[in-house]
Formats: sequence, structure tokens, C-alpha cells
Amino acid sequence: MNILLVAGGSPDEWPQFDPKEFDYFVGIDRGSLYIVEHGWVLNLAVGDFDSLTQDEQKRIQKQAQKLVQAQAEKDDTDTQLALALTVKSFPKADITIIGATGGRLDHFLANLWLPLEPRFQAFAGQIKIKDRQNSIAYYLPGSYIVKQETGMDYLAYCCLTPVKNLTLTESKYTLDHVDVEIPTSYASNEFVGATAGVSFDAGMIAVIQSRDK
Amino acid sequence: MNILLVAGGSPDEWPQFDPKEFDYFVGIDRGSLYIVEHGWVLNLAVGDFDSLTQDEQKRIQKQAQKLVQAQAEKDDTDTQLALALTVKSFPKADITIIGATGGRLDHFLANLWLPLEPRFQAFAGQIKIKDRQNSIAYYLPGSYIVKQETGMDYLAYCCLTPVKNLTLTESKYTLDHVDVEIPTSYASNEFVGATAGVSFDAGMIAVIQSRDK
Repeated sequence: MNILLVAGGSPDEWPQFDPKEFDYFVGIDRGSLYIVEHGWVLNLAVGDFDSLTQDEQKRIQKQAQKLVQAQAEKDDTDTQLALALTVKSFPKADITIIGATGGRLDHFLANLWLPLEPRFQAFAGQIKIKDRQNSIAYYLPGSYIVKQETGMDYLAYCCLTPVKNLTLTESKYTLDHVDVEIPTSYASNEFVGATAGVSFDAGMIAVIQSRDK
Repeated sequence: MNILLVAGGSPDEWPQFDPKEFDYFVGIDRGSLYIVEHGWVLNLAVGDFDSLTQDEQKRIQKQAQKLVQAQAEKDDTDTQLALALTVKSFPKADITIIGATGGRLDHFLANLWLPLEPRFQAFAGQIKIKDRQNSIAYYLPGSYIVKQETGMDYLAYCCLTPVKNLTLTESKYTLDHVDVEIPTSYASNEFVGATAGVSFDAGMIAVIQSRDK
């Protein structure tokens, strides 16, 4: 099962995708409106919707199969709440989040770090954040083959935490059993074939595939 | 002394500023061209310049008071090299980096995490990264008064590492001696007066002031 979470960032920054790839659409605040405007089924809408007009709010209330109205002042962000509801209902699903980058960097970092939260860690390997130029996948300790995504030129290993015994193989730049002490972006690496290898023993890595434009 | 580092990101994303505020301009790769195009003095140009045309490269060679041509395949990024040269020559200077956000997220994260590197840690409090919507300042353990910057509506405390004993005062949301175990963005906080208070005992925090548009 494939689920699309649409956060409030501008659709100009969305990646290219076929909506038919997704079985379930979750709108996060203004993202709910974007789902309706694109004519997709709004399976779940989450947010306080306080930045929307009354007409826009009514449109969402009418279209949403399920609506969870968050309180304006609360501990969880709308995106945290949406992700928590999603993994609770569909713990095996693959989850793609769009509209979660660009603009305010405090928001982007809150989104980037979601899979580090204890409640979301077990789902890290099922979560991707994508925009027009970037695709972020999350890896827990283990040994993996990373496949090159269509149209992506660059490969980066971003250690979100200290990482133990990091080994990179089958790529332009390689590493051999390196302990990484601080958050570090090994940027601008490249595939040399269709896949690259990565393994490590502790910590969490965001693998970012990207392109220049 | 105020130094401006101009990285290669689009000038559309630059913050508003008066170039007269800066005493020294450092161009990082394509950023060198932007400095020349704006008619500012290119005190130092750093990069491999391989994404520029020969004419553009000649223009930089002619205008740069000092030019450090990095090798295309090297350990340091151009931004790391530029920052290392800057703090070596001007260890007391305040450093503002622009053109370092947006676009490729592996590049942005490499820039965001620069002050965590042991060689740059001592200078963390002198480094800011700015764009149109965001101003990022770095704090080492201690007790601080954070001043609201002109035009910025939101205040966020982004723990780049585990942080001990985090206390936030004089702001919409406060915290009292909290240990933060994982990188966490306490986003969407707000000033309630002209200043806010923050203190902590270990780790590094990026304080991000931002606005919606």
C-alpha cells in the first residue's frame, strides 16, 4: 500500500509523480486543499486549517472522508499528527511526504527529523520525503543496496546522528568502516552503476538522491 | 569586522541587506560571479569554477583580489574551504553566509552542519546562514538573550545534537531544564517581547528566526 501525505508547501516544489501510484491521500492543513484542487480523493484531512478561508475550510469539510481537526496550540505539529495517525492505521504502508521542504527551515528540519522520533523509528524505512530536486529515504542500522531513482544525478549519505562503522561501496566516493561522531552530510557522491551499497551498525542515515534543477 | 560569504544558490533567495554592512566579500564558486555582477569587491574567490563558462571564469580571475582554485575532487567542499580560509585570516570576524539554502538538500545540510565540525566549533557564535525567509544563528552551551530580528515572526530552537538541560524563557512556548536526546526542531515559537532567553549545558543549537513569505 502506498500513501501520499501532502503538507502545506507550494505545489511548485512537488516532485513529478503519477497519483495512480497512491492508494490513500492524507492532507496536512493547506495540503488538504491541494488534494481537493487536484481532484484526488481526500481520504484523511489533518490540521487546524486556520490559515484557510472559511470557503476553503468548507470545501475540505465536504470532501474529506475523515477529518481530524487539530488544536491550534498543541505539542504535535500537524505533520507529526498526520504521520502518527497514518502509521497507526496502516503500519505496513510505504509513505511519501511532499510539500514538506522549502520555505521555513524550522519546518523543514522538523519534517527531516520525524523518523528519529522513537514512535516513528520502526517505520523509518517506509518513509520518504520528496520534492522537485530531492528524494530522501531513511535507513536504520544494517546493510543495504540503494537503487538509483529516475532522473537523479547525485547521491548523498546524511548522518542525522552519530553513526558507527559506516561503509560505502559501489559509488564514486567510498568509505570503509568509519565512525561518524557528528551529523555529517557526505554530499555530491554519485552512482557508478544502477545501485550503490551502504552499511552501518548504529545511528540513522538519510540517503538523499538529488539533481541540480 | 563583518564578512559576507556568497555561496552558489540563487540570488532570488538572498535576504535583504545593505552591502555596506560588510567589510570583506568571499565568493564561493558561482557566488564569486554574483559578487562581481553586483559591483562589490571580490576580496577572495574560492572554488573549482567548473560550472562557469570560460568568460565567466576570466571575469572572476580578473576581479578577484585573491583566488584559491580548489581541485574538482577533494575532501572539503568549496564552502568548507572558504570558511576555513576565512576563520584563519579573520578569527574574530562575524560571518554571514548567503546562497547556502534551497535547491539540493544534501548541500543545505552540509552547510547547516558546518559549525559542528571541530575546526569550526569555536567560531559557531560568529556564523550566521541567511536567506529570504530564514536567519540561522548557532549557540554553544551557555545562557543567552536572543534578539528578535527585523521582519522575523517566528523563533525556533533546533537542537542539532543531543542537548542537556535546555531552558527556554520569555517566549510563547517555554521549556524548563529538558534533556533532548535526538536532533529536534522546536519550531513555530514566537517572541513575546524584544528578546527571548535560552540556556543549555551541552550540545549545539541552531536558533532559526523566520517568516512565512
